[in-house]
Amino acid sequence: MVGGRAVIELIGLDGDDTLWHTESLFSVTQAAFRDLLAPYVSDADLDDRLVATERRNIRLFGYGIKGFTLAMIETAIEVSAGRVSGTDVQAIIDAGKAMLEHPVELLDGVQPALEQLRDAGHRLVLVTKGDLFDQESKLARSGLAELFHDVQVVSEKDEVTYRRVLAIHHVDPAAFLMVGNSVRSDVLPVLAVGGRAVHVPYPLTWALEVAELGEQHQGSCWELSSLSELPALVEQL
Amino acid sequence: MVGGRAVIELIGLDGDDTLWHTESLFSVTQAAFRDLLAPYVSDADLDDRLVATERRNIRLFGYGIKGFTLAMIETAIEVSAGRVSGTDVQAIIDAGKAMLEHPVELLDGVQPALEQLRDAGHRLVLVTKGDLFDQESKLARSGLAELFHDVQVVSEKDEVTYRRVLAIHHVDPAAFLMVGNSVRSDVLPVLAVGGRAVHVPYPLTWALEVAELGEQHQGSCWELSSLSELPALVEQL
Repeated sequence: MVGGRAVIELIGLDGDDTLWHTESLFSVTQAAFRDLLAPYVSDADLDDRLVATERRNIRLFGYGIKGFTLAMIETAIEVSAGRVSGTDVQAIIDAGKAMLEHPVELLDGVQPALEQLRDAGHRLVLVTKGDLFDQESKLARSGLAELFHDVQVVSEKDEVTYRRVLAIHHVDPAAFLMVGNSVRSDVLPVLAVGGRAVHVPYPLTWALEVAELGEQHQGSCWELSSLSELPALVEQL
Repeated sequence: MVGGRAVIELIGLDGDDTLWHTESLFSVTQAAFRDLLAPYVSDADLDDRLVATERRNIRLFGYGIKGFTLAMIETAIEVSAGRVSGTDVQAIIDAGKAMLEHPVELLDGVQPALEQLRDAGHRLVLVTKGDLFDQESKLARSGLAELFHDVQVVSEKDEVTYRRVLAIHHVDPAAFLMVGNSVRSDVLPVLAVGGRAVHVPYPLTWALEVAELGEQHQGSCWELSSLSELPALVEQL
């Protein structure tokens, strides 16, 4: 089946900033990080240096809060020319731990939307990036775990990953719909393997996730302002 | 089928210190860490403090090199009463990165043993704990990836995890054999769910993995000194 006419058999959902708030938590931590390093560097410079450190490290650390914490420490040492104190480094680690312990806050309308999809007989799979341990812990604390047929914590959301998820579930790409807030991770690679995608933008987007959605994907890609609108869209597919 | 009489359909293999050396890499890093902090603390005290930090953090950080690196930094700050320098903290982070980049060194006889099992028609699954990103990278670099039917990077190796792996593969516990160097992670929970296990001890065992193997498991559990002996054992099952 081509042209978006196949029945949707499997719905993939991103976790961070699609089901629960994450980037806002990073932003709050980063604001505290700026205060901590204000003696050494301007806010804008610090943000740039932090993103540069994250980019340099992603090949080794992958995605997640532990890598973010290590990037903050490295950046702090760099911008202070090694003068940052042990107490300040501990404050950064404590900020990372606070992020890992932070209560999981669902976005508006997420739970009813997923329940409606589940009740309509759709198989839901969480496809999420980041630290395995942290993601599993968040899902458990979210109260959403029982709504999911399967959970795939993946190291990168690319075409290879989506093909693997589809193979595991014996689902044809044309029968797969992915929903998430990142054009780069949740939309483009899914369209590339022949699936369909729904983009639900989050007000904040991490610098490493920014990508443009071209014009050529009409009929296989939609944008919604809230997950609450998802069940109605799926009904029409 | 009970009593270890079922044919083995699926063989699970641990990664770290079963297929490739890991703990020796941690040991080398820890030796450099002791040198770095020699001005502040004795070696034995430092080791105890590091294990205590790891234990305290495992609930938030899980297993893996990023959490180990953060634990070294915290311990350094603690034992130096905050006096450890930014340069020393950076040296710790660099040690963590060096671990992540270190070439994957297979244990003796691993590759031929796995090839023999694969050629004999056994389905092999890697069941490994740690950072998802790091484990996938190690498997890719090990040259063993194509020998595995499936890879499960898990956050904890307990009964729930093994039941899930068996369910994914539609395999009865009696038809599952797990092979690894940790009694606590690779043997006891597998026996508890009704599977069989092979313990291949590694000379070094991380303090958090130490467990005793009781006498009551004869007939469902074996100890081998090398993975090279595995194909012959499997032949007899």
